[in-house]
Amino acid sequence: MKIEHPYLMFLGDAPDELAAKTAIGIKQWRPDWCKGQLRLENCNADLGLPDMTIAQAREAGVKTLVLGVANRGGIIGPVWMETLLEAIDAGMDIANGLHTKLSTIPELAEAAAAKGVSLFDVRHFDGKLPVGNGEKRSGKRVLAVGTDCSVGKMYTALAIEAEMKKRGIKSTFRATGQTGIFIAGEGISVDAVISDFISGAVETIAPANDADHWDVVEGQGSLFHASYAGVSMGLLHGSQADAIVVCHEPTRSHMRGLPGYSLPDLKTTMEVNLMHARLTNPDCVVAGFAINTKALDDAAATKLMADISAEFGLPCVDPVRNGVAPIVDKLQEI
Amino acid sequence: MKIEHPYLMFLGDAPDELAAKTAIGIKQWRPDWCKGQLRLENCNADLGLPDMTIAQAREAGVKTLVLGVANRGGIIGPVWMETLLEAIDAGMDIANGLHTKLSTIPELAEAAAAKGVSLFDVRHFDGKLPVGNGEKRSGKRVLAVGTDCSVGKMYTALAIEAEMKKRGIKSTFRATGQTGIFIAGEGISVDAVISDFISGAVETIAPANDADHWDVVEGQGSLFHASYAGVSMGLLHGSQADAIVVCHEPTRSHMRGLPGYSLPDLKTTMEVNLMHARLTNPDCVVAGFAINTKALDDAAATKLMADISAEFGLPCVDPVRNGVAPIVDKLQEI
Repeated sequence: MKIEHPYLMFLGDAPDELAAKTAIGIKQWRPDWCKGQLRLENCNADLGLPDMTIAQAREAGVKTLVLGVANRGGIIGPVWMETLLEAIDAGMDIANGLHTKLSTIPELAEAAAAKGVSLFDVRHFDGKLPVGNGEKRSGKRVLAVGTDCSVGKMYTALAIEAEMKKRGIKSTFRATGQTGIFIAGEGISVDAVISDFISGAVETIAPANDADHWDVVEGQGSLFHASYAGVSMGLLHGSQADAIVVCHEPTRSHMRGLPGYSLPDLKTTMEVNLMHARLTNPDCVVAGFAINTKALDDAAATKLMADISAEFGLPCVDPVRNGVAPIVDKLQEI
Repeated sequence: MKIEHPYLMFLGDAPDELAAKTAIGIKQWRPDWCKGQLRLENCNADLGLPDMTIAQAREAGVKTLVLGVANRGGIIGPVWMETLLEAIDAGMDIANGLHTKLSTIPELAEAAAAKGVSLFDVRHFDGKLPVGNGEKRSGKRVLAVGTDCSVGKMYTALAIEAEMKKRGIKSTFRATGQTGIFIAGEGISVDAVISDFISGAVETIAPANDADHWDVVEGQGSLFHASYAGVSMGLLHGSQADAIVVCHEPTRSHMRGLPGYSLPDLKTTMEVNLMHARLTNPDCVVAGFAINTKALDDAAATKLMADISAEFGLPCVDPVRNGVAPIVDKLQEI
């Protein structure tokens, strides 16, 4: 799966900005890839990009229409279909972040086949994968892990990749979830693969590389999440991480989606992740902590990060407030 | 998925006994369900059951033709097709343990639909599953875990169920792999579900039950297996085990399929499984050890089991040599 850019961002009839969260993430991390946006009637989201028709986008060189928006009820209605068919007719690929698979809508599948364009359903994975083999491979890899889901693992990984590129370090962000895949232009939604192949999927998307190249692997879930820990475990083994970065949101009262389940502490999270990571890479270390301090004021955030850094003797940053330079410093020592 | 018995065991043209391993396991644990066997030319396996044609099996009340045999090259050839179509025509369901899905062979799918019979592809799972919710449910559950794959987890679980039934304890074996599914008549191949739903699949197959009922859950893989640990992790969380039994094969030089990966020791296996099990059931304990001592002589086996029992102060048995009574004694204390 290789999604070609530039992109035209389809916002449909998004009821609010939140529905366009994926699209916002793509524009934030790959602004040069996003040529314009296409909004239908009643769309309440705005990426601040030029509004374009399909024809205008084609003219501007757009290769892919990106559905980076949650829709009402998970159904692709007639009002959307018209635009999607127009895009196919104009020769564009469509990359879709919805649960609904475009490839199972006969009208779209037939039109795409006739026109020779691709429909990418990035939340799904139907390809063939190998079982993980655990064999040591060249190149370096860092994985973002977390105390919980949605604590900033993707943001942290992208910030590390950006900082590495700024320093001239060879690096590639490796996407394991839908927003990440749009941002990378490729990847596999690891939570969508058959469970026998979780670590094999990660070995596939973060393969052997130059000895001085870093793969920055997007994490998923948490080893302490009762719903998704299996995914996190396979990711840890498959990424064969030389280093992990522990991500956390300090104000959360319970694990996401699991009232009654409290979050693990940072020490436990670090130790248990390290233990399992060392199965496939005995030299794995912790490169630091990435804390999402959005809910704290400056003083509280600064104090919390200083306390964590002192407790563990490791860098602790909020990637949004501070960037990730101290973590990349640490990675450069490896 | 509910596979009706009695079964006719299809051995096809199995080149040797090993190819019929699944069928042998079914006959061992559910002899009353196995009415006969059907062998084609050049079949070198023999379950010691009466040889039957499809017509004879139908006459004997057989409901399902069971493909519990590995075939040559994973392809269902014309010589098999004839028998399968005959079974469908006689109104039998077919339950298939091969990787190849019967339901994707148009000739079989059409014949089955026309006749109103079911094709069960037990290595696959296409149904809808919930994400695991981790909510405490009633009833008791014991899970077989292991240092590695193929160390006797299914056998141990079935032996525990049998011993419990002998004692009049309410219990149900819960199958998570293909042979187990034939033996239980239902279940889900957990390694075949989408990875987001591993723990949800286990919550589904081992649901809330009477407070004094035991679900004996078949384990898969190992938390220390670089290919499959994600599956084992989800199983542990989803089963919400009150007790685990640690299974081991003491002469294995490396993890199955992974040369260069040594087996974890029993203490580590026990502790790490307990730690993760306690996420969804804080009261989980170890009920004992089940050692596959097939490769040892009597004296060596007896000494090894005595040593392990003394080291941990817990029952240690070889289910084949000794049965699992001491483990069930321990479970009755819970």
